[in-house]
Amino acid sequence: MQPAMNEVEVKTKAAKAASKKLAYLATDTKNKALFSIADELIANEKTILAANRLDYAEGEKAGMSAAMLDRLLLTSERIQAISSDVRNVAALPDPVGETFEMRTLPNGLQISKRRVPLGVIGAIYESRPNVTVDISILCLKSGNAVILRGGKEAIHSNSALAKVIQNASYQAGVPQGAVQFIESTDRALVGQMLKMRDTIDLIVPRGGAELINYVAQNAAMSVVTGGIGVCHTYVDSSADLDKAVAIAYNAKVQRPTVCNALDTLLVHANVAQSYLPRIATEWGGAGVEMHCDQRALEIIQTLPSLKVVSANDEVWGKEFLALVAAIKVVGSLDEALEHIEYYGSGHSEAIVTEDYAAAMRFLNEVDAACVYVNASTRFTDGGQFGLGAEVGISTQKLHARGPMGLKELTTYKWIVLGNGQVRP
Amino acid sequence: MQPAMNEVEVKTKAAKAASKKLAYLATDTKNKALFSIADELIANEKTILAANRLDYAEGEKAGMSAAMLDRLLLTSERIQAISSDVRNVAALPDPVGETFEMRTLPNGLQISKRRVPLGVIGAIYESRPNVTVDISILCLKSGNAVILRGGKEAIHSNSALAKVIQNASYQAGVPQGAVQFIESTDRALVGQMLKMRDTIDLIVPRGGAELINYVAQNAAMSVVTGGIGVCHTYVDSSADLDKAVAIAYNAKVQRPTVCNALDTLLVHANVAQSYLPRIATEWGGAGVEMHCDQRALEIIQTLPSLKVVSANDEVWGKEFLALVAAIKVVGSLDEALEHIEYYGSGHSEAIVTEDYAAAMRFLNEVDAACVYVNASTRFTDGGQFGLGAEVGISTQKLHARGPMGLKELTTYKWIVLGNGQVRP
Repeated sequence: MQPAMNEVEVKTKAAKAASKKLAYLATDTKNKALFSIADELIANEKTILAANRLDYAEGEKAGMSAAMLDRLLLTSERIQAISSDVRNVAALPDPVGETFEMRTLPNGLQISKRRVPLGVIGAIYESRPNVTVDISILCLKSGNAVILRGGKEAIHSNSALAKVIQNASYQAGVPQGAVQFIESTDRALVGQMLKMRDTIDLIVPRGGAELINYVAQNAAMSVVTGGIGVCHTYVDSSADLDKAVAIAYNAKVQRPTVCNALDTLLVHANVAQSYLPRIATEWGGAGVEMHCDQRALEIIQTLPSLKVVSANDEVWGKEFLALVAAIKVVGSLDEALEHIEYYGSGHSEAIVTEDYAAAMRFLNEVDAACVYVNASTRFTDGGQFGLGAEVGISTQKLHARGPMGLKELTTYKWIVLGNGQVRP
Repeated sequence: MQPAMNEVEVKTKAAKAASKKLAYLATDTKNKALFSIADELIANEKTILAANRLDYAEGEKAGMSAAMLDRLLLTSERIQAISSDVRNVAALPDPVGETFEMRTLPNGLQISKRRVPLGVIGAIYESRPNVTVDISILCLKSGNAVILRGGKEAIHSNSALAKVIQNASYQAGVPQGAVQFIESTDRALVGQMLKMRDTIDLIVPRGGAELINYVAQNAAMSVVTGGIGVCHTYVDSSADLDKAVAIAYNAKVQRPTVCNALDTLLVHANVAQSYLPRIATEWGGAGVEMHCDQRALEIIQTLPSLKVVSANDEVWGKEFLALVAAIKVVGSLDEALEHIEYYGSGHSEAIVTEDYAAAMRFLNEVDAACVYVNASTRFTDGGQFGLGAEVGISTQKLHARGPMGLKELTTYKWIVLGNGQVRP
């Protein structure tokens, strides 16, 4: 006897069926659905906040950290902001149907590439409930069905948000089944999702390193991994030190718990004496713990009331996700480039310099998703880059690199129009 | 004691080192290298042909089929054609350095995507020695280092070709080590290559289904798979039957051993009586063996001297790579679309129709790398599509789909130019 299909099987099958119609749904219908979702998030604020309070209370009971609780928390203002993000995505051009590289071959065949959705996207994510909305609307707008598998800690919030999205979008004409939310928190279902390569075209994991590595190693289908950012800022000998202080401060302190925050500060020896005391004082004031190599330590250890320790080998290449930074003095741009190549995770890397040649070498030679001159790495973000929102930040080289928006959820097919051509 | 590095380790390390310089090598130098390779292939014809005779003799001794021997064979004319292909690639625009989606954000940050090479490409391929040249020149032009692992059956030919490529390109200024050829035919080295995810950015397998599946299942790094083509041609009720005969004949007969050749012919019931006897007679004259469903069988089994058999369930979705075709009569376009969705491999699918709505539905709804109206699927080819040559034909949806040329061997990085911006 055939066993009854479980939740993942039923919902994945429904998503696959919906994806066929979604693939060529009119842009108008998709935008109407997005605007309706934006409205209904506001209209259903009470229900959403009530669900969120359940998660929050359970998180408190379970001893969740203040940072984690803050990530989990929804407020009226945050729902307003999420709703506003949905409107931003609605306002973006529809990537589907874009036709490019069109040409007529000498034999009269007209060939082109047409942008089409990937099909069914599986999202496996943790903690922040806004991810439920972000990924759903990016998938809808790009014509993909989506299977949402959020973390247990936000199950009530995610479920409430998913219901709003489903009701609003189906009423606006999106095919039933396009947005699937896995209600069961059974961990075995994740393993099951990762095997369904015939129905799920792409898995996007969003969360900590453990989740991402588990998904990357176990998924039978394509995965876009990322979100692990070991980010360096290199202060060159020619740097404008005011800029260098502002940039390194911002990159470390403005939001230390995220992947694009600074982890290691590299400082050219020529400016270490003048620069390090300044940034160390600023960082110290913000409570940053500094792990310094020998040369950096000698310069800043005499400053008053700083959390300064001697760096051990493990701090290089470490993603801190906290008010902690590693500091190293380097003898040259080459040494900085070598350090970044060896320890970087290919996410976001910055140089602060007023020297043209140094800026060009850094841009050319650093192999990362986002390479900066004279700006904070904190800008690596789909919203900041004008993509409306992001599915995640890819640190792999194939398919998509850096913040992934609508276009990165599509592929293309070659369209060949003939009038009887055969190959000689 | 550290064991000595073996051939794959040494060569992969050298390729990785070369890839750093190759990434921003001037287009002029790369083109000079390609023209020099084209010249030297001709100048070294004797050496290459002598090496090829060794492989050919061994193939004969081993009882290789005539088709396989033909794929292995090099002649003066074939070397001329290969050399000419190299010139074609030299004439194509360099994809590296292309800057796109550039814009200035409201805060003054200038962001753009810059096209860059993937890094190190591993090619694992069988039989045809021209693949050694095709992949090498596409990798060189796109700024990638390459590790070539050809089949044992063509080892002498491939080695001779690789030497010509190496000498010509290094003399022209390509960094030493950019083109690596694995001389050992030990099969364990393939398994070893597939584990080197830190040094090989992409593996491209080219060969039969067994090789491709082995690589896809065992590679730790990204793989672009493809080349398995279960290709359908659907003759609609409104088809111009002259075109339908010419197209199906060409798609099956012009070169039956390749992935873009026709496997299954679907014919609308309304035209089956008038169309099937015509194509069956043409195919019969070319020696095509036809596996027919009941309705097709009834129409054509009475024709004289054809190889017609009743189809069993296994012929649907089978890639024949030979003068064999499956034939099915369908009641509607919907039935044809369902058949293609279920049995197709996402490679190349064609409709023959004079009906606008049918053509549009076929283009919209068929989920394959290349979708044709009124043309032979045999055109799915990098050379035919104007890509100069091809690394392979992808049937996956991520990164690249269909014929892969220069652009498909690149990725991009985000370049962010600031003057001190920090995130508020």
